[in-house]
Amino acid sequence: MIVRDRPSALRLFFIMRGSILPRIWMHLAVSTLLAVVVTWTDGQFGHHKLHFTTTPFTLMGLPLAIFLGFRNNAAYDRYWEGRKQWGELILRSRSLARQCLSLVAPDRHDDAGSRLDEPHLRIISRAIAYAHALRHRLRGTDGAPDADIAPWIAQGEWERVRTQSNVPYALMLEMGADLGRCLRTGRLDACLAPSIDASLSAMTAVAASCERIRGTPIPFSYTLLLHRTAYLYCFLLPFGLVDTIGYLTPLVSAIVAYTFFGLDTLGDELEEPFRASDNGLPLEALCRTIEIDLRTALGDRDLPPPLLPENYRLS
Amino acid sequence: MIVRDRPSALRLFFIMRGSILPRIWMHLAVSTLLAVVVTWTDGQFGHHKLHFTTTPFTLMGLPLAIFLGFRNNAAYDRYWEGRKQWGELILRSRSLARQCLSLVAPDRHDDAGSRLDEPHLRIISRAIAYAHALRHRLRGTDGAPDADIAPWIAQGEWERVRTQSNVPYALMLEMGADLGRCLRTGRLDACLAPSIDASLSAMTAVAASCERIRGTPIPFSYTLLLHRTAYLYCFLLPFGLVDTIGYLTPLVSAIVAYTFFGLDTLGDELEEPFRASDNGLPLEALCRTIEIDLRTALGDRDLPPPLLPENYRLS
Amino acid sequence: MIVRDRPSALRLFFIMRGSILPRIWMHLAVSTLLAVVVTWTDGQFGHHKLHFTTTPFTLMGLPLAIFLGFRNNAAYDRYWEGRKQWGELILRSRSLARQCLSLVAPDRHDDAGSRLDEPHLRIISRAIAYAHALRHRLRGTDGAPDADIAPWIAQGEWERVRTQSNVPYALMLEMGADLGRCLRTGRLDACLAPSIDASLSAMTAVAASCERIRGTPIPFSYTLLLHRTAYLYCFLLPFGLVDTIGYLTPLVSAIVAYTFFGLDTLGDELEEPFRASDNGLPLEALCRTIEIDLRTALGDRDLPPPLLPENYRLS
Amino acid sequence: MIVRDRPSALRLFFIMRGSILPRIWMHLAVSTLLAVVVTWTDGQFGHHKLHFTTTPFTLMGLPLAIFLGFRNNAAYDRYWEGRKQWGELILRSRSLARQCLSLVAPDRHDDAGSRLDEPHLRIISRAIAYAHALRHRLRGTDGAPDADIAPWIAQGEWERVRTQSNVPYALMLEMGADLGRCLRTGRLDACLAPSIDASLSAMTAVAASCERIRGTPIPFSYTLLLHRTAYLYCFLLPFGLVDTIGYLTPLVSAIVAYTFFGLDTLGDELEEPFRASDNGLPLEALCRTIEIDLRTALGDRDLPPPLLPENYRLS
Amino acid sequence: MIVRDRPSALRLFFIMRGSILPRIWMHLAVSTLLAVVVTWTDGQFGHHKLHFTTTPFTLMGLPLAIFLGFRNNAAYDRYWEGRKQWGELILRSRSLARQCLSLVAPDRHDDAGSRLDEPHLRIISRAIAYAHALRHRLRGTDGAPDADIAPWIAQGEWERVRTQSNVPYALMLEMGADLGRCLRTGRLDACLAPSIDASLSAMTAVAASCERIRGTPIPFSYTLLLHRTAYLYCFLLPFGLVDTIGYLTPLVSAIVAYTFFGLDTLGDELEEPFRASDNGLPLEALCRTIEIDLRTALGDRDLPPPLLPENYRLS
Repeated sequence: MIVRDRPSALRLFFIMRGSILPRIWMHLAVSTLLAVVVTWTDGQFGHHKLHFTTTPFTLMGLPLAIFLGFRNNAAYDRYWEGRKQWGELILRSRSLARQCLSLVAPDRHDDAGSRLDEPHLRIISRAIAYAHALRHRLRGTDGAPDADIAPWIAQGEWERVRTQSNVPYALMLEMGADLGRCLRTGRLDACLAPSIDASLSAMTAVAASCERIRGTPIPFSYTLLLHRTAYLYCFLLPFGLVDTIGYLTPLVSAIVAYTFFGLDTLGDELEEPFRASDNGLPLEALCRTIEIDLRTALGDRDLPPPLLPENYRLS
Repeated sequence: MIVRDRPSALRLFFIMRGSILPRIWMHLAVSTLLAVVVTWTDGQFGHHKLHFTTTPFTLMGLPLAIFLGFRNNAAYDRYWEGRKQWGELILRSRSLARQCLSLVAPDRHDDAGSRLDEPHLRIISRAIAYAHALRHRLRGTDGAPDADIAPWIAQGEWERVRTQSNVPYALMLEMGADLGRCLRTGRLDACLAPSIDASLSAMTAVAASCERIRGTPIPFSYTLLLHRTAYLYCFLLPFGLVDTIGYLTPLVSAIVAYTFFGLDTLGDELEEPFRASDNGLPLEALCRTIEIDLRTALGDRDLPPPLLPENYRLS
Repeated sequence: MIVRDRPSALRLFFIMRGSILPRIWMHLAVSTLLAVVVTWTDGQFGHHKLHFTTTPFTLMGLPLAIFLGFRNNAAYDRYWEGRKQWGELILRSRSLARQCLSLVAPDRHDDAGSRLDEPHLRIISRAIAYAHALRHRLRGTDGAPDADIAPWIAQGEWERVRTQSNVPYALMLEMGADLGRCLRTGRLDACLAPSIDASLSAMTAVAASCERIRGTPIPFSYTLLLHRTAYLYCFLLPFGLVDTIGYLTPLVSAIVAYTFFGLDTLGDELEEPFRASDNGLPLEALCRTIEIDLRTALGDRDLPPPLLPENYRLS
Repeated sequence: MIVRDRPSALRLFFIMRGSILPRIWMHLAVSTLLAVVVTWTDGQFGHHKLHFTTTPFTLMGLPLAIFLGFRNNAAYDRYWEGRKQWGELILRSRSLARQCLSLVAPDRHDDAGSRLDEPHLRIISRAIAYAHALRHRLRGTDGAPDADIAPWIAQGEWERVRTQSNVPYALMLEMGADLGRCLRTGRLDACLAPSIDASLSAMTAVAASCERIRGTPIPFSYTLLLHRTAYLYCFLLPFGLVDTIGYLTPLVSAIVAYTFFGLDTLGDELEEPFRASDNGLPLEALCRTIEIDLRTALGDRDLPPPLLPENYRLS
Repeated sequence: MIVRDRPSALRLFFIMRGSILPRIWMHLAVSTLLAVVVTWTDGQFGHHKLHFTTTPFTLMGLPLAIFLGFRNNAAYDRYWEGRKQWGELILRSRSLARQCLSLVAPDRHDDAGSRLDEPHLRIISRAIAYAHALRHRLRGTDGAPDADIAPWIAQGEWERVRTQSNVPYALMLEMGADLGRCLRTGRLDACLAPSIDASLSAMTAVAASCERIRGTPIPFSYTLLLHRTAYLYCFLLPFGLVDTIGYLTPLVSAIVAYTFFGLDTLGDELEEPFRASDNGLPLEALCRTIEIDLRTALGDRDLPPPLLPENYRLS
C-alpha cells in the first residue's frame, strides 16, 4: 500500500512512486506511436483513407463506461472487503485475548516462559501465529514461514501443524482443543465458553472470506470483454480524431489511453488485494499490529515497533 | 469457472477459451452480415433510403445503458452472493467440526472405522455429505449422487434419506437428532449446545439462500425488455452509421454488437451461478475443499488433492 | 413470477406472455399515433412549426436517466429484499423444526393425531400456519384464509386468533406460550430455550420487514416527478425527431416510448412484490415449500407436490 | 408520507397533492420568466449577444449528473434506513412482549389495573412509551408528550423520567432495572435473561441510529456545491437554447428546471425523514402499530384503530 | 461538521462559511486566468493555433465521470461508515451501562465518591474514558489527553495505561479484568456475563473499524489518476471552448473547474472523516453525548450541556 500525502498541483505530474504509469508505459507508448503515425499520414493507408469520425466512439463509449465502471467498483469492493476482513481479524484477536484473560479462571503466571503451558495463554499466543499463517497462505509464501509462526506455538505443535495442507485451520483446531481443555479442567464455566468459541468461529470466517476473495476472481470472460473493448477503443481512436483536431491527435489519444489503461491496470491490482504489490494490502503491517496488541495483553514489555512505510510503501 | 492469467496484449485477441465469443458468434455473424448488406446497398431498399442518422441511437442509448448496467450488476451480485454462501458453508463446516471436537466430551476413538458410531463424529462426517447433497440439488443432478454422499453416512441413513424430496434438509434433521443424542447422553453441556445449533442453523441458511438464487431469476419481463432493445439497437445501427462512416460500418457494427451481445450472454451465465457453465461457480472444487478440511479434523491421513482446473476450467 | 427459458432471437419479438407490452399498449399506441400525426404534418400546427431539434432531449435525458436508473434499482431492491425475507422465513422455519425436535426432550409420539397435543410439535405445525397467515396479510386476502391456516392449529386456537387484527403476531404469541410451556414442564433446558426463542424472533422480523416493504412505497412525489418527465419526453420527442429522420419518426418514437413506459410499468410491479401480479413473488409456492419441509420434519408421508408454474406463471 | 394510487395518464399532470410543485413554484417561475425575457430579447443585452450554444451545458451536465445522482441516492438511503430502523423497533417491541410473556414465570394477573405492578408486564407497557418518546425526540416535539407517554408508565416514573435530557434512554434504564428485578426475584432464569437483554439492546440501537440520521446531514459543502451548480445551470440554460429552438426556449427551460429543482427539493425532504413533512416517515402511524400490537399481547380488548391517511397523507 | 440551514436562493451564492471555495480558490484562479489568456489570444501561441474543439472533452468526460463518481461515493461511504461506527459506540456504551446496572447484583452505593470502588460502576465510568481515548487516537492528539481521560478512571490505572501504545485497547483489557472480578466474586451469574462481554467486543470492533478507515486510504494510484485527469481537463478546456463561445470561455471554464476542484477537495476531506476539518465528524460532540448518557446512568445530577456549533461548526 502506498502511503503518501497528496502532492501539490505542480508536483502532481512528476510523481512516479505510486503512479500506475511505470506499469502501462509500454501500452501507452505503442498507442501514442500509432497516433503519431496516423497523424503523420492523415489516416491514409495507401490510397484508402479511414473516415471514422467520432461517432463510433460515442457509441462504443456506452458499453465501455458500463464495463469500466462496473469493473472498477467490483475490484475496489474486493480490496475493501479484504481490508475489512483483516480488520475483523484484528478485532477478534483482541477480543479473544480479553476473553481468555477475563473469563478463564485466574491462576495466570506472569513469567513469559510458562506462557505455553497454560491453555488459555496458549490460545492468545497462537492467535499471533494464526495471523502470520493466514498471511503466508494468502500470499502464497507457504515455503518458509517458520520464523514468523514457530515462536508463538510449542515446538511439537509446529512440527505437527506445518505439514498440514491448511495451516491456519490446523492452528484453529488446536485452539479449539485448548478451549476444550479449559472447559474440562473446570477453569472455564460452560456458560462462558460460547463467547470464546464465537471468537474462534469469527476468525475462521475471516480465513474463509479471504480465501474466497483470493480464489474467485472477477469472471475471466468479463475481463476479456473489457480488455478487448478498451484496446480496440484506444487503438482506433486516432483515426477518429485526426480529421477534427489534426496534430493534437497524439496528445488527446495519449490522455485517453492513459486513463483507460491506468484504470484497467489499477483494477488488476485491486482485484487481488493480498498480493504484495504497490496497491496490495499491507498484510505484514497488520500482522505486526496483532502481534503488538496480543503481546501487550500477555504482559510483554519489549514490543516491536509498528511497521513503517519504506519509500512510501507499507508492505 | 475459468482460471487463467491475463494474457499479453497481443494474445488477448486470439484467445477463445474463456471468451464469450463461441456462444454469440451466430448473432454476431447475422448482425455483421446485415451491416455488410446495408453498406453495399448504401441503406437503400428499392427506391427508399432509410435516413436514420445517429440521433436515435443516442436517444436509445439512455435506456439501454440503464438496462445493461442494471442487469450486469444484478447478475454479478447473484454470482458473488452464490460464492459468498458457499464460502459461508465452508467456514461453518470448519467451525462445526472444531466445535464437535472441542465442546463434546472426549471419549473419541481415533480409529476411522468407528467414526460413524460416535454422534459428534457422525455430525462432522455428515457435513461432508451435506455439501455434496446441496451441490447435487443446485445443479439438478439429483439422479446419481450416491458415490458422493453415501460414503459419509451410515448405510441405513442413506436409504432413509435418499427418497426425501429435500435431501440436504433431511441430512440436517439427522444432524439435529445427533446433537440431541449428545445432549441427552450428557456428553454435551446444555450451555454449549446452542453454539453447535447455531452452526447447523447457519448451514441451513446457506441452503435456503442458494435455493433462492437458483429459483428466483431476474424478472423475465426485464430480461425480455432488455433483449428486445439490445437486438433492435444492433440491427438498426448499420442504417444509422452508413451515411457517416461508409464502408467502415460493418467493423463498427460488429464491435458494438460484440460488446452488447457479449455483455448480455455473460449476464445470462452469471445470473445462474450454480450451473456447470464456464462462468459458473466451481462447486465441485468447493466441495472438495470441505471434504479435505473436515477429514483433516477427523484425523484422516490419506486426503485427496484439491481439484485443479482442466483446460483452464475449474468445475 | 414468470418462469420460462430465454427464447431464441426470432421468437423474442413475438412473445406476449411475460412481456410488459399488454399493460402499456394504450400509452404506446397514443404516443405512436401522435408521432404519426406529427410526421404527417411535418410538425406544423396551423402556420406554426415547432423547431424542437434534438437538443432538449439530450438535456432532459440527464435527469431522466437519474430518475429511471434510481427508480429501477429501488424497485428491484424491494423485490429482491422481499424474496430474501421469504427465504429467511423458509430457513428459520426449517431451523425451528430441527430445534424443536432435537432440543426438546423426546417423548414424541409418532402418531399424527396427537401432534397438536405436544407443545413442541404444535410449534412446528403452527409455523406452517404462520407462513400462510403472513401471505394472506401481505396480499390483503384476509377474508377467507380458513382453508390454509385452520388445519395446522387447534380448533379453539383458530377461533381465538382469527378475530385479531394481526393474525401472524397472534400466532407468534401462541408459539411463545408453547415455548414457555416446554420450559416450565422441564422438557426444555433453560440454556437451550434462547435458541428457539431466537428463531421465533427472526420469524417476527420477517413479518415486520415484509410489512415495511408493503406499507412504505417509493415516495409518491418521486414517482410523480418521474412519470411527468417520462410522459413529456415521449410526447414531445416526435417534434424533435421529425426534421432529422422524417418518416422514420414513428418507428423511433415507438421504440423509445416502449423502453420508457416498459421500464416504468415494470418498476410499478416490482415495487410491490407481494401483489399477485405477473412479476410478483410466488408466495403460494413458497408457502408450499415450507409446508412440505415442515411436514417432512414431523414425519408425514403423504406430502403435496411443489407448486408448478401454470402458463409460465408461478403464483 | 403521501399514500395514493398512481393516477391515470391524464390526471397525472393536474395533481397537486403530493407533488413537489407547490414548494418550487417560485424558483420555477423566476427561471421561466428569465427564459421568457431571454427569448424576447433573443439573448441580447444592450449590444452584446451571449452566444452560449449548448456545449457548456453538456460539459456541466457531467458533474451535475454525479451530484444529483449521488445526492438522490444518499437522501433516499437515509429515508429508507430511517424506515428500516422503525421497522426494527416494531419487531423488537413485538419480540420483547413475546419474551416477557413466555420466558418470565407465569403468575400473571389478567386484570388491567395491576399491569404496572408486575415488572415483566411493566416492561411491555413501557415499550409503548419508548416508541412515543423516541418519536417526540426525533421530531423535536419534546414540549408536551405527556398525553402519549404518561398513560403507559407509573405516575412516579414519569415524574422522574420527564426531566431527563434523553427520555428514551431513561425509559430504557428503567426497563433494565425491571429486568434486574425479574432476575433477582427468581422469576426469570439467568440463562433466559440474555434474550430479553438483547431485545433491549436492539431497541437502544434503533434510537441511536435514528439520532445519527437526524443529527448528521449530508455534508453542507456538498449541498452547497450542488445547489450552486444546479441554479447556475438552470439560469444560464435559456441563453444556450435560444439560438437553437427560439420561442420554445421557455417551455424546455421550464421542464428542465422543474426536474432539477424538483429533484433537489425532494432530496431536501427525504434527507430528513423524521420531520413531519409530506415525504417524511409516518411516525405516528408506526407508533400506533406498536401500541396496538403490544396491547394485544397484554390482552387488551378495546384497541384503537390503525391510523389512516387524511387527505392522502399519513402522519 | 458544518451545521446550518439551507440558505435562500439569493444568499446561496455569497456564503463562504461551509463552502469549499476558500480551499480551492487558488486552483480556480489559476485555471480561470489561463482561460482569460486563451480567450485574449484566441487560442494562438505564436503562429500556432490549437484547434481542440470540444470532442476530446466528451471523450475524456467518460473516464472522468467514472473516476469522480466512484471517488465521491467511496469517500462518502468512508465518512458515513465512520459516523455509523461512532453511533455504534454510543449505543454500545448505553447498553453496557444498562447491563452493568441491571445484571450485576445490586449492592450499589449512590454516593459518587465510591464509584471507582465497584467494578461494575468502574466499567461504566471507564467507557467514557474509552470514547475520549479513541477520539484522541483517531485525531492523532495522543499528546495531552489527560484532562479528558484521567477523571474517569482510578489514578493508578491511568498511570499504567497512558504509556501503552494502544490506550483504548489497554482500557478495554481493564474492563475485561473488572468483568472477571464481577464473575469471580459471584456478583454476576456466568450466564449473564456473555451479554456484557458481547458489548465489550462490539466496542472493540468500533475501534478497529475506525482505525481501518483512518489507516487505509483510497488507493493512492487512484487518487493520482483522478487528480491528473481532472487537472488536464480543466487546464485544456479553454482551448476547446474558445472557438465556440468566445469571450464566455472564462465564465464556463470557471464553473466547470469549480465543480471539479470542489468535488475533488470535498472528497479529500470526506475521505478522512476523523480529522478536525470542516467536513470531519464532530467527535467531541459525540464524546460529550456518551459522557452525558453514561453519567445519567450513574445517577449524576450536574451534567454538562451538549456541545453546540460555534460559527456553524460542530467540532
